[in-house]
Formats: sequence, C-alpha cells, structure tokens
Amino acid sequence: MDKEQMSRDIDCPALVSRALSALKNSYAPYSGFHVAAALLAESGEVYTGVNVENASYSASICAERNAAAHAAACGERRFTAVAIVGGAGGRITAYCPPCGICRQVLREFCDPSELAVITAVSPEDYRVQTLADLLPDSFGPEYL
Amino acid sequence: MDKEQMSRDIDCPALVSRALSALKNSYAPYSGFHVAAALLAESGEVYTGVNVENASYSASICAERNAAAHAAACGERRFTAVAIVGGAGGRITAYCPPCGICRQVLREFCDPSELAVITAVSPEDYRVQTLADLLPDSFGPEYL
Amino acid sequence: MDKEQMSRDIDCPALVSRALSALKNSYAPYSGFHVAAALLAESGEVYTGVNVENASYSASICAERNAAAHAAACGERRFTAVAIVGGAGGRITAYCPPCGICRQVLREFCDPSELAVITAVSPEDYRVQTLADLLPDSFGPEYL
Amino acid sequence: MDKEQMSRDIDCPALVSRALSALKNSYAPYSGFHVAAALLAESGEVYTGVNVENASYSASICAERNAAAHAAACGERRFTAVAIVGGAGGRITAYCPPCGICRQVLREFCDPSELAVITAVSPEDYRVQTLADLLPDSFGPEYL
Repeated sequence: MDKEQMSRDIDCPALVSRALSALKNSYAPYSGFHVAAALLAESGEVYTGVNVENASYSASICAERNAAAHAAACGERRFTAVAIVGGAGGRITAYCPPCGICRQVLREFCDPSELAVITAVSPEDYRVQTLADLLPDSFGPEYL
Repeated sequence: MDKEQMSRDIDCPALVSRALSALKNSYAPYSGFHVAAALLAESGEVYTGVNVENASYSASICAERNAAAHAAACGERRFTAVAIVGGAGGRITAYCPPCGICRQVLREFCDPSELAVITAVSPEDYRVQTLADLLPDSFGPEYL
Repeated sequence: MDKEQMSRDIDCPALVSRALSALKNSYAPYSGFHVAAALLAESGEVYTGVNVENASYSASICAERNAAAHAAACGERRFTAVAIVGGAGGRITAYCPPCGICRQVLREFCDPSELAVITAVSPEDYRVQTLADLLPDSFGPEYL
Repeated sequence: MDKEQMSRDIDCPALVSRALSALKNSYAPYSGFHVAAALLAESGEVYTGVNVENASYSASICAERNAAAHAAACGERRFTAVAIVGGAGGRITAYCPPCGICRQVLREFCDPSELAVITAVSPEDYRVQTLADLLPDSFGPEYL
C-alpha cells in the first residue's frame, strides 16, 4: 500500500486530534518532554497513550508503547496507524519521531510496510511514513 | 496502615476477579507465561493490563506496568492496590510475584508502605503485601 | 550466610574503591545523577559499570546492570557481591540503593540470600544488605 | 562517508571475528537465540558483548547494547562500527539485524550516517549498512 492510499484510507487529522487530546496526561517530570500517541487498530478502535517517566529513567515508557500495550491488553493484535505528537513543555512545534524502542514494539503487531506512522504538529500539519521506512530490515518474530 | 486494615478497605476478591478476567488477552508467545493485573487508583477506578511480549525480549512489558502506564495516561497519579495473577499456559496455580521492574514502576505513584500488592490464585486465595515489603529501601523521585 | 560473615569474607572497602574509581566515566547528561558499580563474581574477578543514559530515557542502563551484563559477557554466571556509589553531580553524600530493575537483573545470577549488596559513601562508610533483603519474594527462573 | 569507503577504513572481517569469538558466552536460556557484537570505538579499541536474558524478559539486554554500555563505561563517547552475529542455538546462518532498542542506544554515541553496522555470517560473508540506513529520522539528544 502506498502512502497516498494510506492517507486516503486513514483519517489522519482525527487520529492526530486524539493524540493531542491525550497529551495533558503525559507524566514527564524528569525530561519535561511531553509526548502522546493515538493508535488505530485493525478493529477500528483507537487507543491513546502518553509517556510515563520514572525516577529510574530506564523504567520509563514512551507514549507509543503505552498505547500499544493497552491496545494489546484489549485484545488487539493488528495495528493500522499511529499518530504521535510531542515537544518540550508540551509545546508541539516540530514532528517528533518515535524512538527505536517504540518502533520495535509496533513491529510485533503489523506488517511494517502497512503500518502508517503519522508524526504531527497539528491536525493540518503532519507527515505520513510507514514503519518499514523507519525500521528497515527489522528484527521480528520470524527470527525466533 | 497495616495489612489487616488494607484488606478491610480494599475489595481484594473483586480486584482479583478483574485481573482474572483480563488474563485472556495476555500476549506471551515466547514465554508461554501469561500474567494479568488489575490496578486500583485513588480515584476508585480500576485499570487492567496483561503482559505483552516482543521478539526482542527486552521490549516486552509486564502486566503490572501495562496497567500502571494506562492508569497514568488516564490521569491517575496515586495508586492504592494492584492484584496480580499469572502462570504458565495461563493456569494459575501459585502466587506470581511482581518482577523488580514492575515494583520500580509502581514505586513512582505511591507511598510504598501504603500500596497493597495482592498476589492471587483465585478471589478466595490471595496474599496481601505492601510495596514496602517487596521493594524496601527503594530508589525513588526523592533521590533526584 | 549472615551479613557479618559476608563482611568478613568480602573485601568491601576494596570493592567500594573500585566503584568510586569507575564513577568518572558515568554518562548522565540528562539526570545529572552519576552512579558506578563494582561487581565481584564467584571467580574472584571484579567488573565495573556506570550508568549510561539515552535521549529516549527508557533506553538508559544503570551502573549495576552495566557491570552485570559485562560480567556475564565474560562468562561469569554467579555473582558474590556488588558495591554501588552514586549521587547528583557525582558527589557521593548518601547511600544510593539499586533500582528495582537492577535488583531483578542481579537476581538471575545468584541465590538472593547470598549476594551482598554494598551501598557506600566511601570505603569506610558503607552498608551491607543481601539481595533477599532488597528483593524479597522475587520472580526468578524457577517460575518459568 | 559512503559504505565503500567505510569498508576500506574498517577491518570488517577482524571485527566479525571478534564478535564470533564472544558468542560462546551468550546467556540465552529462554530464547535459545544467541547473539554477540563487537563494537569499534573512535579510540581504536574494540568492545564485545553478548545477549544476557532474564526470567523477567524485559530485563534482558542485547549483545549490541551490552558492548555499547561497556564501551561507555570505559570512557568511549564515539562509536565507529559494530559487527553483529546471531542465530538460534548459536548457529549463524543468516544476517541478524539489530533490534530497535539497540539502534536507539547506538544512536546516542555517533552520527548515524557515520556508524557502520555490519551484520555477518562469517568474516567473509557480511553486509555493511549505516545506522542512518537502519534508524532514519531518529530521535536523539537534539530533541531534548
């Protein structure tokens, strides 16, 4: 599926709006960098998440993984798209790309060339990539 | 607060039941060890989570952290209790203690001596400990 | 083995000194909290580690885990003791306890009641606990 | 720097050999998938690592991160290349790509377009990519 087709099939502005609405609950007292994500599952349901930090930094979780973990806990096993917004102090002024850990977590529940990763500043200003764009030659279940 | 008081204040059997109900969505294709958790926040709301594994094992998340991350994303900042059930193949035959990572994550959102950690086999057969019992001399926000 | 016996069998001041010597290489640009650890393996070898942070906070690693991972990579499978020093700006003014993640990682390579966890301010000022003290009722290999 | 130039500047076969030599110490009792890495730092030193798993899967560490954490603990702050070998049961029959977490950790200590990632079957059979190839549009220190 190409990205133009993806952009037609997925209501990207609506997904970005969902991420923006979730942002207020980001818990980022250590970095001050607030992130939210809205994940669209194949079922049509949307799951949101925020970053949740920890005094022991490596126990933190990013927004995308938070949304993915919740979706999986609700029985979802196939993801269609994820919208991501983030910025220092919760001000969204640039596209915030997902970190490598989040790319790896999303990888488990999709065909990388079919998952749309939407990084956004607003519902009108966003970029669409695939997970294959962002995590080429990925390590996945087929290696084990 | 002592544990007898905790057991009176918290409806432990109901929380264990919520964890047991969530267990069916555990995603554990690599370990075959299925775990679910139900987290009671100070607001009175209950949040459930399951373990969600990943082909790159360290990208996995446990049930307790899944529930905690979702609760935080819903705006909760203070946890009261968590019930945990788990076992190989989803058969619950013994108390499954939380791993050290999950203890650390719970630590962020409670006074360790006030958080009830309920490990259970069934709504009738469970054990109540505090997080302080399970993670004494913890590393927390006050160190930073 | 009781802690007095441990303190006689292990050269705690020497292990603390090794941790203090390693501290200069801590990479903590985000937290400013510098930590180092020195791990004594059953072989008699000492392995040091420091915390190494990452812009995506959850990709960070603590000092204790860094030392443990390196020891395991060198073929060690049984740990005897670990000394930990840490503080904001690299100034060591209080005992810095290991986080829950590190307790879990150490758990894999010891009998918790036999591993000495030494938190120190200096070679003369330290505290000895066991991993069992710090991670009671732990989740370990026997559950899988 | 293009990849042909990289391949001339870096002794890839030697780095792959170092990774292969380290493989015997991989601790992978849960996945049975053994991985080793050899990391070349700007100083010219080579650091090796293996995957070290944990009963709580998410407390595991990959080989690449193990090598990176040790290099940083030895004072390295700039990485030049990493060679990776891995396979089920320690049999190396295909290129094993780094997971997303490892790509993120390597990102901290390099210009992604300058770090050579060498995935190998043997010193004679390997592939050279850059970290920018494997983690485009990465999240790094400049975002914070």
